[in-house]
Amino acid sequence: MKPEIKDQLRAIVGEANFSDKLIDLVSYSSDASQHLHRPEAAVWATTAEQVQAIVRLANQEAFPVTVRGAGTGLSGLSVPAQGGLVLDLSRMDQILDISITDRAVVVQPGVIYADLDNALAPHGYFFPPDPGSSKVCTLGGNVATNAGGVKGAKYGTTRDYVLGLTVVLGDGSIMRTGNRAMKSVSGFDLVRLFVGSEGVLGIVTEIILKINPKPRATATTLAVFDDLEDAGRAVSGVMAGGVVPSVLEILGRETLKAINQNTELNLPEADAMLLAETDGYTQGEADYQMERVVEQFTAHHAREVKQAESAAQAAELWKARKSCVPVLARLRPSFILEDITVPISQVAPTLRGVQDIAARHQVQIATFGHAGDGNLHPQIIYDAADHDESERVEAAVHDLFQLAVDLGGTLTGEHGIGLSKAPYMEMEHDPAAMKLMRSIKRVCDPNNILNPGKMALDG
Amino acid sequence: MKPEIKDQLRAIVGEANFSDKLIDLVSYSSDASQHLHRPEAAVWATTAEQVQAIVRLANQEAFPVTVRGAGTGLSGLSVPAQGGLVLDLSRMDQILDISITDRAVVVQPGVIYADLDNALAPHGYFFPPDPGSSKVCTLGGNVATNAGGVKGAKYGTTRDYVLGLTVVLGDGSIMRTGNRAMKSVSGFDLVRLFVGSEGVLGIVTEIILKINPKPRATATTLAVFDDLEDAGRAVSGVMAGGVVPSVLEILGRETLKAINQNTELNLPEADAMLLAETDGYTQGEADYQMERVVEQFTAHHAREVKQAESAAQAAELWKARKSCVPVLARLRPSFILEDITVPISQVAPTLRGVQDIAARHQVQIATFGHAGDGNLHPQIIYDAADHDESERVEAAVHDLFQLAVDLGGTLTGEHGIGLSKAPYMEMEHDPAAMKLMRSIKRVCDPNNILNPGKMALDG
Repeated sequence: MKPEIKDQLRAIVGEANFSDKLIDLVSYSSDASQHLHRPEAAVWATTAEQVQAIVRLANQEAFPVTVRGAGTGLSGLSVPAQGGLVLDLSRMDQILDISITDRAVVVQPGVIYADLDNALAPHGYFFPPDPGSSKVCTLGGNVATNAGGVKGAKYGTTRDYVLGLTVVLGDGSIMRTGNRAMKSVSGFDLVRLFVGSEGVLGIVTEIILKINPKPRATATTLAVFDDLEDAGRAVSGVMAGGVVPSVLEILGRETLKAINQNTELNLPEADAMLLAETDGYTQGEADYQMERVVEQFTAHHAREVKQAESAAQAAELWKARKSCVPVLARLRPSFILEDITVPISQVAPTLRGVQDIAARHQVQIATFGHAGDGNLHPQIIYDAADHDESERVEAAVHDLFQLAVDLGGTLTGEHGIGLSKAPYMEMEHDPAAMKLMRSIKRVCDPNNILNPGKMALDG
Repeated sequence: MKPEIKDQLRAIVGEANFSDKLIDLVSYSSDASQHLHRPEAAVWATTAEQVQAIVRLANQEAFPVTVRGAGTGLSGLSVPAQGGLVLDLSRMDQILDISITDRAVVVQPGVIYADLDNALAPHGYFFPPDPGSSKVCTLGGNVATNAGGVKGAKYGTTRDYVLGLTVVLGDGSIMRTGNRAMKSVSGFDLVRLFVGSEGVLGIVTEIILKINPKPRATATTLAVFDDLEDAGRAVSGVMAGGVVPSVLEILGRETLKAINQNTELNLPEADAMLLAETDGYTQGEADYQMERVVEQFTAHHAREVKQAESAAQAAELWKARKSCVPVLARLRPSFILEDITVPISQVAPTLRGVQDIAARHQVQIATFGHAGDGNLHPQIIYDAADHDESERVEAAVHDLFQLAVDLGGTLTGEHGIGLSKAPYMEMEHDPAAMKLMRSIKRVCDPNNILNPGKMALDG
């Protein structure tokens, strides 16, 4: 990047919001994935107009712009794959309005999920997606990745809550689309075109989100299964049983083993454990639904069913689930956390398929995930410095995606395509869909300056 | 249309599925709006391949193709504004799969909403949008218009339930996008780009829908308000009160008066009536929520609050709401049913604004609608043969849209843009959004053969 361009960037955002120091550029080379690429400069923008000026400059001088929130992405979405500029939006962190009456909030993209959650709690409302990284991730990142979490089966994902956006498009124009109204069928659904678009179509500078009243009662139950097939059938049974649990998580044998080796939780070692939560405004409603869930657990031969009698007991049951990622990450130097998603009926075949893939390629894969919406997280733990093992991991990853697609599913339920899954896009999407995505990319970002190299759109 | 083209169409769909008889062409000139334009031929397609062949022929011979389901659209979406061919999909009426285990159904676009509802009922599941025309409208039409209904505030609209689509694009390619998995963030959200796209981007030939378990308990209450402001504040109060009613409908004074003049219902004549329904798996849950609703009705000075003690009483309370459209339509020779949608806090100002507009232009407007999601239906009743009155109606319609946009809302919550609202698109959407929509149209349908003249995309 020429010094004159850096001067122009300094002029746009101010000296304090520009850096080309090595320490910053190294920090901005990575996110929570294993991808690495160093940018040439970084800026913190604080207004839509600054973002617009930066995008215009990037078009003029032909340098890539990669937007970043908290950098918690697991697929390399905010890694500047082709260098250029990292545009950090974390200082656009204002909650602009909370309107309980409109059931809507207006936020800047750098607001942290947990900060919005804390601001809404006194009103008894919440923004439901609740991604795993909720304590640190930004709402702009949630929008860019259509973030989801443990409550997806009942509450959906970010997509279901975005009412309006202000976006700086790749050509430098500013577009407002959507508003605070709960419903609209006015023109194409541009809002949802940008939700999950990973910063390749435009840069979101303001977000209007729908919020929900928080349920007041929950019921929590854990069940242990000796047979994976039974656990899979229990998942299908629950989801077809006439209620929608707010949580239905699964932990596979490898995950349970790893947790026991690294914590004092003393979980039963079995093929699978299911954790269910139901909710409602009344305890009777939560309990009614949990009875239906437990019926299915029992009908499908759960070895053990533990119902929480108190919030403290529920928290105890949750501990195992919450320890998965850190415990597994600690076992070996490197990990890849996938999030293939399949039709609910295919949860058991998928879990079995993952075991087969691990055996075939001699890699260690522990699986857990959101069984209630078919979103499974096979976590591959390995040593990236071991060339031979890395090659086997790569082959296993390929087979995981093939498994999901063969079973009627998708490469990713919540982590996005980014760099990690770009090579597999055509495994899932037919030529007409790929062509349409690439055309939309060209329309929004004619010079391909926004997050180039992602989502297989350059082909 | 040249005879050779008609022969080619006959060859594609078979003689029995082609018509250029006057009676058919006249039938296909209109939908449930006041727009009229006669096509030159009509076909009933029964496979995606036939649709593809028709679209290819249309590109080659440059004739417009307007897709049609049941023709219940209120904005002229399926009126062949530039002649050419009407492509009727009502014979693609197969429910291809019901998988309760996957929480999904696969249907052809010509399946009638009520037929799916009946097929799901024995399983205790439903497809929630429930548009007013549910007894006759098709699911393809629901997708094309992102159909919604009385339960939008709690259950959302069609958009929230479409998991996957097979689409014949304007260039004649067949695209499959999405699948039975509950979640996906794999590439752009092409599914939702086509939901609500009114047949201008592609022709949907297969649909995968998410379904929900049906609530088992409901509570129903009606409240009467002497003061419109109070009713508006009650709506805001309910929606901010920590629960989401499954129904929160409003009927304005003019509507109540018209119902009383034309039925034996003997409704109280007041500024506004609200009808609320809550639901759950348990009666306790429905009742708890209704207590919160009634608290708000009472706090905002409802003159009368009637809670249904039985299903029969609830049905009685529903009668008034269900009679609105037919009763009002009977009063004068013509009607226009609008569906402006505003932030929930703006329901009262909107109702007042509608009264002002009626007075200013000396036209008769009766309003009712889905107050819980801010979606109001001002129904203008008039005589289209009266030129002077028609001009006043046109001016009033303009002002209704301006009112909605000024209050932070949208032209249409569920009826779509079509022909009726095309002239007002730029009132709501900024130049960047209009440009993007037009570019997407060109990408999907380069020769503008699909439903041309709609949604202000030709500009």
